[in-house]
Parts: sequence; C-alpha cells; structure tokens
Amino acid sequence: MRKVLIIGAGKSASQLIKYLLNKSESEQLEITVGDLAKENAQKLVGNHKNGSVISLDVFDKEQRQEAIQDATIVISMLPARFHIEVARDCVTFGKSMVTASYISKEMKELDAAVKEKGLIFMNEIGLDPGIDHMSAMQVIDRIRDNGGKMLLFESFTGGLVAPESDTNLWNYKFTWNPRNVVLAGQGGAAEFIQEGTYKYIPYQRLFRRTEFLQIEGHGRFEGYANRNSLKYRSVYGLEDIPTLYRGTIRRVGFSKAWHIFVMMGMTDDSYKLQDTENMSYRDFLNLFLPYSPTDSVELKLRHYLKIDQDDLLWDKLVELDIFNPDKTIGIKRATPAKALQRILEDKWTLAPEDKDMIVMYHKFGYELNGEKKQIDATMVNIGNDQVETAMARTVGLPVAMATLRILNGQITTSGVQLPISKEVYEPILKELEDYGITFKEYQVPYLGYNPENVGG
Amino acid sequence: MRKVLIIGAGKSASQLIKYLLNKSESEQLEITVGDLAKENAQKLVGNHKNGSVISLDVFDKEQRQEAIQDATIVISMLPARFHIEVARDCVTFGKSMVTASYISKEMKELDAAVKEKGLIFMNEIGLDPGIDHMSAMQVIDRIRDNGGKMLLFESFTGGLVAPESDTNLWNYKFTWNPRNVVLAGQGGAAEFIQEGTYKYIPYQRLFRRTEFLQIEGHGRFEGYANRNSLKYRSVYGLEDIPTLYRGTIRRVGFSKAWHIFVMMGMTDDSYKLQDTENMSYRDFLNLFLPYSPTDSVELKLRHYLKIDQDDLLWDKLVELDIFNPDKTIGIKRATPAKALQRILEDKWTLAPEDKDMIVMYHKFGYELNGEKKQIDATMVNIGNDQVETAMARTVGLPVAMATLRILNGQITTSGVQLPISKEVYEPILKELEDYGITFKEYQVPYLGYNPENVGG
Repeated sequence: MRKVLIIGAGKSASQLIKYLLNKSESEQLEITVGDLAKENAQKLVGNHKNGSVISLDVFDKEQRQEAIQDATIVISMLPARFHIEVARDCVTFGKSMVTASYISKEMKELDAAVKEKGLIFMNEIGLDPGIDHMSAMQVIDRIRDNGGKMLLFESFTGGLVAPESDTNLWNYKFTWNPRNVVLAGQGGAAEFIQEGTYKYIPYQRLFRRTEFLQIEGHGRFEGYANRNSLKYRSVYGLEDIPTLYRGTIRRVGFSKAWHIFVMMGMTDDSYKLQDTENMSYRDFLNLFLPYSPTDSVELKLRHYLKIDQDDLLWDKLVELDIFNPDKTIGIKRATPAKALQRILEDKWTLAPEDKDMIVMYHKFGYELNGEKKQIDATMVNIGNDQVETAMARTVGLPVAMATLRILNGQITTSGVQLPISKEVYEPILKELEDYGITFKEYQVPYLGYNPENVGG
Repeated sequence: MRKVLIIGAGKSASQLIKYLLNKSESEQLEITVGDLAKENAQKLVGNHKNGSVISLDVFDKEQRQEAIQDATIVISMLPARFHIEVARDCVTFGKSMVTASYISKEMKELDAAVKEKGLIFMNEIGLDPGIDHMSAMQVIDRIRDNGGKMLLFESFTGGLVAPESDTNLWNYKFTWNPRNVVLAGQGGAAEFIQEGTYKYIPYQRLFRRTEFLQIEGHGRFEGYANRNSLKYRSVYGLEDIPTLYRGTIRRVGFSKAWHIFVMMGMTDDSYKLQDTENMSYRDFLNLFLPYSPTDSVELKLRHYLKIDQDDLLWDKLVELDIFNPDKTIGIKRATPAKALQRILEDKWTLAPEDKDMIVMYHKFGYELNGEKKQIDATMVNIGNDQVETAMARTVGLPVAMATLRILNGQITTSGVQLPISKEVYEPILKELEDYGITFKEYQVPYLGYNPENVGG
C-alpha cells in the first residue's frame, strides 16, 4: 500500500479525497487526511476502509514530521503561506509533494535540494493556477509544433454562480474565499502588454477597463486584468509575444458596480474604523461621503460619484441593503473591507442548493504560413451542490491525478515543478474530460488589437 | 561664547543661519554649520567672523560625535529620518536639540532620558509643523481661558507660488521637494471628524473633496484633506471636539486637474516602468490608456476619464506638454511618479526671480456663554527671492528663535517637546511679527457644518 497524506481538509479537498478513495483499491492507496479540526477531515473521508483521519497542527513540528515520515507522498491543501514548512520536511524525509498554489520564493529555493533527492514537488496544479497552465500549454505547444508563431495569448478565469442559482442583480455569489473577492486587484497596478506596448491599470481604474467575452450557450461575460500577466512570458516561453493579458471573469455589469466600492474606499483593508460593532450599513456608507445635516446618503452618493438617476447599478446597491439604517455591521473595529464583506455576505452567500460555475476562456493568436489565425478555447464547469462544487472539482481533481501519476512513475521530472510539460498536461487533461472538465476549441478570425496594422 | 551646531545646510537652513549670525555679536554665539557638501554650508555662512563650516557626514559616528561634543546646542535640519542618530548623541553628551520635524517614535522614546539630563529637545518648530501649532494653540488657549468651549478646528497650510510669479494655469510651482508633492496623499485614507461623525477619504477621491477658502486680498484657495487630522485631538487637548480637519492649500482648480494623474495611476511610486529613458511624454501617458491602433492619446484620455471638450483642466494638461511625442523622460526605469515629476519639473520649477508664498488658514469654532462663535486666522507670507524664500523664512526663523531661547533659559521645560505651551509660542509668535510673519484674525459668524442643528 502507498500512503497518501493530505494536509488540510478545507472545501477544496473534497473531490480530491473522493477521487483518491475511489481509486484506493485498484491503486493500493491508504489515504490519511490531517486537519486542525479532525471532524472536518472525518466528514470528507467518511468510513472508507482505506481512509483515516488525524488531528494535525502544521505548526506542531513533531506531529507534522511524524505524519510526513509515515507517508509515501504528501499533498498540502493548506493556505499557500503554510506549504513551506511541509515542503522542508518533505525534502528532509525524501517525500514528493503536490500543491495547488503558486510557487513561492521559498519553495523555489528548495529546487536544488528536491532534485538532488530525486523528488517531485508539483505545484500550481489546481484550477488557476493549474488547469489554466495545462490547457494553455497544450494549445501553445501544438501551435508551435506545427510551425506557428504566437502573437497573442489572453486567458481569463472566473469562479461564478451557476445560471440556475443566479438570483441577484450582480450575477455573483461567493463561491470561494469572500475576503479574496473584496481585496481583488489591490497591491499594485495591473501590468500587461498589447501589440508590443506595455499597459498599466491602477486599482482605481481596474474595474472600468473590462473586456467582453462571449461563450456559446453561456452568454456574455466581462474580464478585468490580473496584476501579473507578464510573468507568464517566461513561464510559457512567450518572451517575445506582443500581446499577453490575463484576467478575471465576472458577469457583465459586475465591475461597473464594484467600481463604486473601490472609489468610495470601502475595499480598503489597511486601517480600522471606529465603533463598527453597532454601526448601521447606512452609517458605514456615510463614513465615505461628505457631511451634511440635511442631504440624504442616497443623494450624496449619486452626486459624489455622478450616478445617473436611471443607472442600473443603483439597483445593485439597493439590493445589497447598503442604505439600511437598522442592520448593523456587528464586528468590532472592522476595516472597511471587512465591513463591506459582512454586508455582501448577507446577499452573496450560496444557499445549500446553489451551484457554482467555473468559466475559463483562452485566446491564442498566431501566425502560420504567413497567415494570422486565432483559436479560442473555453471551459465551463458547473457544480453539483455545495460539497461537489465546480471549484472543488477543478482544483482537487488535477491535484489528485498528478499525485497518482507521481506515485506510479508516470511523471518523472524531478524538482520544484509546475504542470507545463506534455508529460504532465496531456494525460491529466485527457482524464479530466472523464469528469466533465472539457475545453471547446473554436478557430476564429484573428483580430488581435491591430489586425490591419494601421496607426501607431 | 555659546556654540550652535547646525547640521544640514539645505534650502531651509538659509534664514535660520542668517538670523543666528545676525544675533551672534549681541548673543555671543559661534555658529558652526556642518554638511556633507561643505560648499553648501559655506554659501550660507559667507565670511561672517562668528560663522564656520565643517564637512559632516551624519553617518560617520566619530565625526558626528566630535562635532556634537564641541557644541552648546544642536540644530538638526537633516531629513526627518536622520535626526535620531544626532538625538542619541545629544543625550549622551548632554546637549539640547532643535528640529523642525514631526516627533518620530524613536525620538519620543528618548523623552525619559532627555528629562533625566534636564535637556530640551524642541521639535515640530518650523512652519507645518511649527507655526501651525503655535498660532493654533495661541487662539485655542485664549478661547478656553475666556471660558469658551471648542466646537471646530480646521487648519490648512500650503506652499505656493506668489501671485507676481504665478505664470501657469495650475497656479502652482515647486517651492519645496517636488517628490513630496507628487506623492502627496498616498499611504492611506484621510481621516477626520465633522460634527461628531468620522469621515474617510481614500486617495482615489482625495482631490475631489476640496473645500474653498477665501483670504482677504489674496483671493480664493482650495484645501484637500491631510491624512492624519485625528492625532491633533490629543496634541491640542481637543479630545471631544466634534469637528477637526487639517488640509493642504492649493489654488482653486489644481486638485481637479491633479485628480487626472491620480486616476491614471501616474503618481504611483511602487513599481518601475520599462524603457523610460527614451520614452516620450506622450508614450508615458499612453501606458495608462487602452491600446488602439488608430485612436489618438488625446481622445482616449478624454473618453477614459470623461473629460468634456470645454473642461478647462484640459488646458492645464496641454500646458504641461504631456502630449509631446518628442520630449523624453530621460530616466532609466523610472516609477510612474518619478516620470511624472520629470514632466512637471519642466514647467513648475521656479525661475531665479520667482517668489514663493506660504498660506495658512485656521478656523476656530467655539461656544461662549451659550453663543456659537468663530474666529478665522490667516497668514500669508511671500518670499524675497530664491534664497530668502517664504518657506526658508517660516521654517527656519522659529527654529532659530527657539534655539536662542533655550540657550538663554527662556524655554525651561525639559523633555522631547513640541511648541504648544505659552512659554514657547507667545514670545516666538511675537518675534515672528518683526519678520513679517503675522496672522490676521477675523471674528466671523459660526457656520460649522450644521449651524441650525437640523437633520442627522
């Protein structure tokens, strides 16, 4: 029996654990799930005979090392900043490791030691990062293998609510960590390149520079820029590509309304407000508006941000009950971002029967035999319920599949890796199709941003 | 002879040195000016028989300690972050010290040691902080001594160009460190209180929330909020005051135009741009606009920020030559803020004959015998030339006057101080009048923000 240790039994671990337990007989696996809250782990493992749970505090060195020593391979589903403790022990005890998180600087520094021991540390193999890498590299490699030259790569991903559960004007619910949604886009300008020109969007304009995306059978979406598109030049070997852009998908109209919160300063997490425990939603909003003894919060807001009488985004604000003078924040000394999150959670929390939806959209522009061409590839995945979410599926399954392939010697390149080589992405993308995670490809006319090569 | 050591011979030291040299005979002073660039110090000291200059590197411990040991009292005119090295030596060698900078946490921590040795470390005794403290406390103390209760304190200061040298559409030139002007307002929301309600303005709205100020004989100004108004509650003993606001003064219309740079992301100093050395002003602007092969930078900017055809702020942008495709930034890998500063310096640098102007405006609302009243106090000071600037005068003279008073035993309270006690501010404000630094006071109707006590 091979022993798989999974550390962290959060929401994203459910499908990963289910997959491995299902394969445990045929693949001779013993699955141990460790979590600070043992009952969380127990819920996901059930009473499967090849599954067991342990209480595991990742900061308890002895406990952690004991569990890792006992394993054949380790999966860390902890928040990204906690992987490194696990990773160092995996080097010490000679265990390979899998995570769905971006490779941190500390993780990268282990590369030589990992290689020396012949181990594989596979990272960035969830959804985003993960399926985005694999599905993009599959098409990029194919284009290049055919002699094509990449001109444009744009890639968008979003975690949304499924149409059947989409019941609010924002067409959005929290399907993942709400805090990350509130803070999205902060920390620096979004940086990308279009037709060879660098472009920068500061946070205060991020949600006003969206692009529209249309997916057959699923309607229109919008995308706003991610902060760090340019790092994909080296990761994907696209050093000279004139257009490279990565973004986040929302339903059309979300960003225009969200921009109100950005401009008001309500997404700021850098300072604490006074007396938020008993502060009404209305008073919270009023903190960011000029004082007036007579003018209403509504009119002040309309005037301050020049919101027309008939602008539909107003209804989005009303729907959030943000003008309510009776509902209170109920958090002591909250930051603006925490208070806003509290208000949004009233309306954007998934009901038990709600389904989530993952949407991914890639555009690949290239030149082949003197002709400019474009492939668009889209993936839409809808969850079953609040346990088998599309998010848990798309994050967890690639992690599980990579783990099994490492165990079985089908992934062989040692070091601190991410899934951009054929050895990794081909079989995993193939197997993901069995679970309904499929990409549709369309050959479309190349547009780029300057198809006629005019102007300057 | 008493030996005064002045460390730092920057622009702000000129009037301070002149004052002390003028008094050196009658007051038995020997003035030593130390600077990394000895020639700077020499220029300010000239060949006055009671003045001497030394080359002084504040990070050269031996050199620094030797100079401090030799002095009776030390003035540090270094950038604020460098005072602490000097301050620690002053404790060690038992010397009093004067600075025009805000009391840092490290400086504050020396308080007990300074008191134990019976020394006086007088800080925040320049213009802002400095004259603002003194002139405000003088009126606040008078109101309270008369039995009044403070209801409102608002205070605005600005370093501007004098009307006779005001030759551009922004009505602004750099009279001080340009970098501080470009970065002004960054680093967190402005926080203040109006009629008992906390108010917060994020950076992205700061320059759209101005107040107008009118000064007799000098026309209209506008003020935008400083970040840290609330700390003045404890400093001035205004803990329960319902309205407290501090701001920065510009000429009307400056802020509306500056807001364009904020929204574009051109004041960001947190990341470096590519290839700025040979980048044109126009291309720099275009970095922050959507890509188009055909549309002009002008039209993209107008559309992006909804600038009307006839909006006067457009002329302000044109005047800066920011659409020029030939002028280049000329700095390697500049941040957006550094590149913008470069562009502004073309137009906003003071000509040799230009004069600067300092403007200060205080509003004091109070209740006396059941009646609400208000005093407005204004100060306008205009420089003589590029050496005797209003800035050098208003920063340097209070420093010099405080130094002399400490030497003469007229300021007696030991510890790490700022000039908020009568012992300090009364004689210094009186003497400043001899140098044309005078406040005009007006008894005006109390308006506050809710004079009729209506609404909520």
